[in-house]
Amino acid sequence: MSRYTGPTVREVGEAATIQAIRRAAPSELNGDDAAILRPTAPNSRHVSCTDILVLGRHFRPEYSTAYEVGVKAITQNFADIQAMGARPTATLLGLAIPGETPLSWVSELAEGIEATAEPWAAELVGGDIVQGKELLISITALGELTGPAPALRVNRAAPGQQVIVHGKLGHSAAGLDILRHYGSRAAIPDDEILQELAAWHCAPTLVAGQGTVARAAGVASMTDNSDGLISDLNHIATSSGVSLDIDKESIAPDEMLQHAADVLQEDPWKWVLSGGEDHSLLATTAARIPTGFRRIGSTSSQTGSGPKVTIDRATPAYTAGWSSL
Amino acid sequence: MSRYTGPTVREVGEAATIQAIRRAAPSELNGDDAAILRPTAPNSRHVSCTDILVLGRHFRPEYSTAYEVGVKAITQNFADIQAMGARPTATLLGLAIPGETPLSWVSELAEGIEATAEPWAAELVGGDIVQGKELLISITALGELTGPAPALRVNRAAPGQQVIVHGKLGHSAAGLDILRHYGSRAAIPDDEILQELAAWHCAPTLVAGQGTVARAAGVASMTDNSDGLISDLNHIATSSGVSLDIDKESIAPDEMLQHAADVLQEDPWKWVLSGGEDHSLLATTAARIPTGFRRIGSTSSQTGSGPKVTIDRATPAYTAGWSSL
Repeated sequence: MSRYTGPTVREVGEAATIQAIRRAAPSELNGDDAAILRPTAPNSRHVSCTDILVLGRHFRPEYSTAYEVGVKAITQNFADIQAMGARPTATLLGLAIPGETPLSWVSELAEGIEATAEPWAAELVGGDIVQGKELLISITALGELTGPAPALRVNRAAPGQQVIVHGKLGHSAAGLDILRHYGSRAAIPDDEILQELAAWHCAPTLVAGQGTVARAAGVASMTDNSDGLISDLNHIATSSGVSLDIDKESIAPDEMLQHAADVLQEDPWKWVLSGGEDHSLLATTAARIPTGFRRIGSTSSQTGSGPKVTIDRATPAYTAGWSSL
Repeated sequence: MSRYTGPTVREVGEAATIQAIRRAAPSELNGDDAAILRPTAPNSRHVSCTDILVLGRHFRPEYSTAYEVGVKAITQNFADIQAMGARPTATLLGLAIPGETPLSWVSELAEGIEATAEPWAAELVGGDIVQGKELLISITALGELTGPAPALRVNRAAPGQQVIVHGKLGHSAAGLDILRHYGSRAAIPDDEILQELAAWHCAPTLVAGQGTVARAAGVASMTDNSDGLISDLNHIATSSGVSLDIDKESIAPDEMLQHAADVLQEDPWKWVLSGGEDHSLLATTAARIPTGFRRIGSTSSQTGSGPKVTIDRATPAYTAGWSSL
């Protein structure tokens, strides 16, 4: 926190703290008991999800700036909205903060939220701020699903579909290992790839609109890679009652992961298979592969009691995912 | 926490904890990346708000059961939805909990949430659970505003309106002082009024539908009594640029408050004027007084630099409200 100077939230008080957030992330919808969203097209459905980030567990001051924490908080929530095939429309921010938190940290957090939500024109429409012993950020994302097409659920995969993915695999986990290896962001050597992977871990971003592209293209099931590739694919397989086989070559660690693995003396497959938080979209489809997605495998009927997700028909080398308790 | 026995959330793990919550507060809309709400009537608007409760600050195990914490968390959020003239439709639950929290505490919390949201048929549609050093509950409430009539904002009071209220004033603050005086719920003497006031502080409830009644009756501005009567009336006055004068007799402490004040040797006016958390609806109207509301004063043009909220034309004896930082 040492780079954040100036008065603390206790010194300026609640009203000034809220004012600083509203200045960084302005919205006319904010400021009453509750926020009213504009009327939607007939037959639209509203989509909602929530995620909590705790200092020391989901982010660390020696790794991430407040701005990056704001980016990540929005990314992980908007990824869940996009994974339904929907479009994010608004956010609510819950903050529990120790009184000694610098106001500038809070302002920068709101700036990261605002900048990340901006491509969707999704405003920060409300929130709550309380005193807490540990710094905690609770984001609720609201979204909209327009028209009668179904949402993209995890339980709609069927045999004979292609498994497809949009986005990076393993970069966030590699970034985290790099940060752990060197102990802090500042201690990472002047190596563009290591720096970039660490930055991606601290502030992953999404391509706006990729969820609605997938839904328009007739994708059957979808989720985002938040817990780990095998863990999240297992969620689709189990919910849908199908098996997924992944082509090993299609998910092989890229040059950036190879380089980081060489430096850290780690197995890059661990990052690809069990690393989450890239918030890539994982989907199955019986239709054409949507723009921006690539094929990584196929689905089949579940047979026997073996693993539901295989790689080149074999049990994956890493299967663990992230657990929050 | 001693009345909560059985395994801890760390012992049963994340999946079983989520399962316990979903068993207590079931919803078919829960379980995917994000929750999809049913299509709404054309021209409907969605309403949202969020509130955080922290153990030791917003609730205490020696005062409240987990069930009551669930009741209170829903009440304070649904009060904000009702205060816009809207109807609550769904909730999201964010939980940060120490690993040693008994699973039975979490289940009972979810039961309180479910029971309180039930009159509105508002389901728990999603959430997030993380490990935290202190127990924290983050509730997001979603609601719906049907038809073209405006929402009931804080900034629409105008001179010549009646100030009206629905619900109790000062009971929650009296209950808190009773709890503080005796140190715990169990230590309160066998006195029906003291017991009832303490119970109201721990688990205030709402009359479902009172917000839409007020909107249908053409109320001009509305908020809920969450921070304190004078503080919340000041919010309407300042936002709308009017003065409010309250008839002292119409808000005089009732027999329950008088009794508690005698026992505790306190001034009951402190509870009425600066006590919040009753979540009563405070409104102004140029139309007929809606069913369930009562008149407590009137609005006029702002003149001079005196206080914007007066009681029988004089400065209130207590004006402070609750501040969260």
